[in-house]
Amino acid sequence: MTRLLESYAAGRWYAASTEGHPLLDAATGEEVARISSAGLDLGAMAHHARTVGGPAIRELTFHERALLLKELATHLTGLKEEFYELSLATGATRRDSMIDIDGGFGTVFSYSSKGRRELPNAHVACDGDLEQLGRTGIFLGQHVYTSRPGVAVQINAFNFPVWGMLEKLAPAFIAGLPSIVKPASQTAYLTELVVRRIIESGILPEGALQLLSGSAGDLLDHLGVQDSVAFTGSAHTAGILRQHPSVLHGGVALQVEADSLNCSVLGPDVAAGDPEWDLFVKGVVTEMTAKAGQKCTAIRRVIVPSAVADEVTDAIAAKLASITVGNPGDESVRMGPLASLGQRDEVRKAVEALRSSCDVVLDEGEVAGDAERGAFMSPVLLRARAGAVEPHDVEPFGPVSTVMTYDSLDEAVALAARGKGSLAGSVVTHDPEVARTVVLGLAPWHGRILVLDRDDAPESTGHGSPLPMLVHGGPGRAGGGEELGGVRGVLHHMQRSAIQASPDMLTAITGRWTRGSRRTLTPEHPFRHSLATLRVGDTIESEPRVISLEDIDHFADFTGDTFYAHTDPEAAAQNPLFGGIVAHGYLIVSMAAGLFVDPAPGPVLANFGVDNLRFLTPVKAGDSIRVMLTVKQITPRSSADYGEVRWDALVTNADDEAVATYDVLTLVAKEDGGRA
Amino acid sequence: MTRLLESYAAGRWYAASTEGHPLLDAATGEEVARISSAGLDLGAMAHHARTVGGPAIRELTFHERALLLKELATHLTGLKEEFYELSLATGATRRDSMIDIDGGFGTVFSYSSKGRRELPNAHVACDGDLEQLGRTGIFLGQHVYTSRPGVAVQINAFNFPVWGMLEKLAPAFIAGLPSIVKPASQTAYLTELVVRRIIESGILPEGALQLLSGSAGDLLDHLGVQDSVAFTGSAHTAGILRQHPSVLHGGVALQVEADSLNCSVLGPDVAAGDPEWDLFVKGVVTEMTAKAGQKCTAIRRVIVPSAVADEVTDAIAAKLASITVGNPGDESVRMGPLASLGQRDEVRKAVEALRSSCDVVLDEGEVAGDAERGAFMSPVLLRARAGAVEPHDVEPFGPVSTVMTYDSLDEAVALAARGKGSLAGSVVTHDPEVARTVVLGLAPWHGRILVLDRDDAPESTGHGSPLPMLVHGGPGRAGGGEELGGVRGVLHHMQRSAIQASPDMLTAITGRWTRGSRRTLTPEHPFRHSLATLRVGDTIESEPRVISLEDIDHFADFTGDTFYAHTDPEAAAQNPLFGGIVAHGYLIVSMAAGLFVDPAPGPVLANFGVDNLRFLTPVKAGDSIRVMLTVKQITPRSSADYGEVRWDALVTNADDEAVATYDVLTLVAKEDGGRA
Repeated sequence: MTRLLESYAAGRWYAASTEGHPLLDAATGEEVARISSAGLDLGAMAHHARTVGGPAIRELTFHERALLLKELATHLTGLKEEFYELSLATGATRRDSMIDIDGGFGTVFSYSSKGRRELPNAHVACDGDLEQLGRTGIFLGQHVYTSRPGVAVQINAFNFPVWGMLEKLAPAFIAGLPSIVKPASQTAYLTELVVRRIIESGILPEGALQLLSGSAGDLLDHLGVQDSVAFTGSAHTAGILRQHPSVLHGGVALQVEADSLNCSVLGPDVAAGDPEWDLFVKGVVTEMTAKAGQKCTAIRRVIVPSAVADEVTDAIAAKLASITVGNPGDESVRMGPLASLGQRDEVRKAVEALRSSCDVVLDEGEVAGDAERGAFMSPVLLRARAGAVEPHDVEPFGPVSTVMTYDSLDEAVALAARGKGSLAGSVVTHDPEVARTVVLGLAPWHGRILVLDRDDAPESTGHGSPLPMLVHGGPGRAGGGEELGGVRGVLHHMQRSAIQASPDMLTAITGRWTRGSRRTLTPEHPFRHSLATLRVGDTIESEPRVISLEDIDHFADFTGDTFYAHTDPEAAAQNPLFGGIVAHGYLIVSMAAGLFVDPAPGPVLANFGVDNLRFLTPVKAGDSIRVMLTVKQITPRSSADYGEVRWDALVTNADDEAVATYDVLTLVAKEDGGRA
Repeated sequence: MTRLLESYAAGRWYAASTEGHPLLDAATGEEVARISSAGLDLGAMAHHARTVGGPAIRELTFHERALLLKELATHLTGLKEEFYELSLATGATRRDSMIDIDGGFGTVFSYSSKGRRELPNAHVACDGDLEQLGRTGIFLGQHVYTSRPGVAVQINAFNFPVWGMLEKLAPAFIAGLPSIVKPASQTAYLTELVVRRIIESGILPEGALQLLSGSAGDLLDHLGVQDSVAFTGSAHTAGILRQHPSVLHGGVALQVEADSLNCSVLGPDVAAGDPEWDLFVKGVVTEMTAKAGQKCTAIRRVIVPSAVADEVTDAIAAKLASITVGNPGDESVRMGPLASLGQRDEVRKAVEALRSSCDVVLDEGEVAGDAERGAFMSPVLLRARAGAVEPHDVEPFGPVSTVMTYDSLDEAVALAARGKGSLAGSVVTHDPEVARTVVLGLAPWHGRILVLDRDDAPESTGHGSPLPMLVHGGPGRAGGGEELGGVRGVLHHMQRSAIQASPDMLTAITGRWTRGSRRTLTPEHPFRHSLATLRVGDTIESEPRVISLEDIDHFADFTGDTFYAHTDPEAAAQNPLFGGIVAHGYLIVSMAAGLFVDPAPGPVLANFGVDNLRFLTPVKAGDSIRVMLTVKQITPRSSADYGEVRWDALVTNADDEAVATYDVLTLVAKEDGGRA
């Protein structure tokens, strides 16, 4: 008997006392491992996550969490040959394993980088602009995202035992949530191995990651308002989860990624011989055969113009016929078996259902392997008859697609919509008008749409690849959920709340200086302070400076910006906004810098940008301006000896009207003398 | 017999053929109207919305939709006395009606203004930054929001017959969705009147708004993937809706706003005599008595420090005892009846349940009205005994609150969390540390939190008022939904999709110029073009200009910006980022303007701002720069003779490296010669 997979629960590895259920090699039918969660205390796992894992993660800032993910992905990458080896048993070819294993690690790297670039180095993230709720600015609104004191339960599908875990774990971790991962049994041995290596590494805080090998039992009974379940799998199971009392009445947030009858549309502008023709044929074949078509994003519906339908169908069939199906360890093999004999039965049943309204173009053929013991199945291509219903409703989760035809773009969009909501769609066209019409028609039905043509093909990642920076998920039948999408995927795990308060209170709560709140006029110029001593609210208030007509004239001459509003009194008088000569906006910000800069070398290294500059009141010749510069946000970089300081700049005139407002972005050393 | 309320369905007013159910005046018990939807074809309503209303709305841009809302709110404001009159029958005092009626119109005005300020004047909204998906920039990702070709069904609660309709209608309409409004029967006569006035006005396109007076019958059976239901009401009904097959399996998006045991926390820093003490007492009393406590956001749990619990309880009770309860038409009356005798029975039942773990501080007393026929009920204040469970679970939807005590801030937060998710919380404190601790502790459990103190009190809108620019909704028991929040509430009604394409295709799809896509070098300078002829992609490419050391020196002298990196060769050489003298960033953008500006008067009226300026490569003395300025986005203002043009600016050096990138914001006339 093979080894019983263990669960990692409440800080220790747990083996069930029962024999467990056998898991078989997809290609050889040999037993790989056994699985059972019998006797596992699932309530204790939830409790451990909430009381040990969650608090440990939430002690860290977003950036610190992100850095741990980078360390983790680097560590796992070093071990990947071991994972590749075991991945063969799932039926994955080396290329399939790349999608799962390298794809998973790449997602973690991406989240690490996004988390540090797009979130503050803090525990709370602000959402959107300040809202002034009253007349004078003493009562403001600010939306914030905070971490939930709960647990993220992740119920994953069998087809991506590594990526499926990591694409959910990474955003949840950055959001401050501990995860309980429950892989699909069929391929859980690979997930278990990766989790084992993660736990051994000690990189993540204890309790941040637990593994449930086997049935989820009563886990949902132990979840509440602050907990969430992210489920990837069948619409049928999703329906059962949606009816669980914890979801119906207990406030558990359920996120579903389920069935999806994804389509690819060939534009009417494309003819045989065009680069797009080959891209389309190749795309369909790749999506049908990668992971033996066991991808939620695979192309199930091939939507082509009637006029070229025969030709394109023949081209796809010809290419499919040349695919070698067999043992994934064999290098000549392009496509491995399905994950199990049971899965193959399911797919064949789906093909049977599709035959009622489709003709078979390419039927199952030869495979280079023992089809009695291994779940081999060569690709099947169908062609829908007029009015066919099944191709829009039956998802064959294997190397099967159906070709259907359209006569107008409206019809193509209507066909796509009959999928009732999909994860991913694509349109292959070189005509921008076709792209616009099809994409905008498809968009309400899709989470992601690829427009493929000769221009982006060299870098295109293809129809079927979810990317960490783009949302993954789709409406309706696809489950209605949304994962990934860069920081969006992190924020989905957090609670958004509107905070109403005075400026000072908002500064205290968000850790970011809020316009209208207290400014600290420091004895020394704030440019003299490194991050070690600089504080949010520290302010330099400049002397006033008069902007003369000579200044404006001179600036126009010097820069060449002789726009009439700065140079031609008569024409400027006609300008409906100015009614006379005004100073250049760039002159104002240049002078303002002259007023606030402290010139000597010190911790401030550079001004690397300006955000949200608005010119609010024109400056006329003779007006005087002054500027207040206040530390708004301090973001130490976790991996450098400096950080970013965002300053609020307010330029006012002699009447205390705001002339210009903007954020100045600088790099500042962490320590005094730390400039080299 | 009174009039039977009608439904507005598929373009005509429909009266059921049955007698209908009587609706009684809350104060007098007299029949106000009757209601029934018997015989109404609900499938036809959904069909009408999808085929007539939706397409008509989606022909309009976001701004055009927003302008119609402004017109509508203006029109309704002119009719408001009629609404006030009828509102008396719901039990609302004039002040209560203001919240409902003026509050509703204010929400529509706010959406009109937000929609025009924060969304493009277009049909598609971009979400977030471009994502470069490959190495060279030929394959990009952009998230977009598109309108769903569906219908928004809005099932509203009885307590806000006007606001409840409009706060859902306004964001759905801007999102491009037609609405079917189903008011709670109890107060549907007021909703019917307002809908009648809206339809009569002809302001909204036909099919944009339909009214279902009476039971929702089988409406949900007619909904699908692109449709949504926004429900406000009891957790019980929400649970039933969640189990509807259209929601479980049909892809209907359900948004719930349900029970909420909102709390207000008094900070430990506050003592009798402090301004915050009075604010707290007044806030609790207001929330208990406004709308006779029939607000989803009312304070049900009063969380106070043990040390001052007796004193604060007495203060609240004393204030409550002075409230006159009676007929809302009577000007001396502070609080009207509950909406119906049935509602009062429900509230009394809840009070009975609370008594099992609470002591009664103030019991029901005298009312100035006929309590047999009118649903009058004076305020009830309770005090929770140690370990009480019921106050965290039972929502008395009337003028009832329970005081409970804490000894530490952690305990206060834990008590608040026992509400299992609420719409609104508040903390009254003048101590920023207390505010920070309580707000961050409460935030994961709340959709909105008010921090009230002497500083923001003069403008505070209070604990219980949802505001159109702030999210309304809460996790867990409160339903897990999110409404309002400005543009957030619009986007909730749209589908977010990730589009992967080449730059040119993204430009065609989004209507916004995408970096990397084709630039059109126009024969005339683009500053010569009004919005009538200016096109996205139009570009001016400047000549190069050398930046000399003299330029840098001179700019430093002229502006006063003598930062050492621009003036001191030795010190600059030590700077880790520059390694020598570099030009000022402001010098570069000033010179760039000199290079791209076309000086003569013309349609370009002003440069009103700059966004996302980043300095990417330092410019050293002797380097030459040039700039390309390309029309990125054109936003005509619907109510002015000019619009906003956003230009992409790219400054490069002689090696074609990007020196600086930014967006230049200008105002440009719609027509040539249209400058005045």
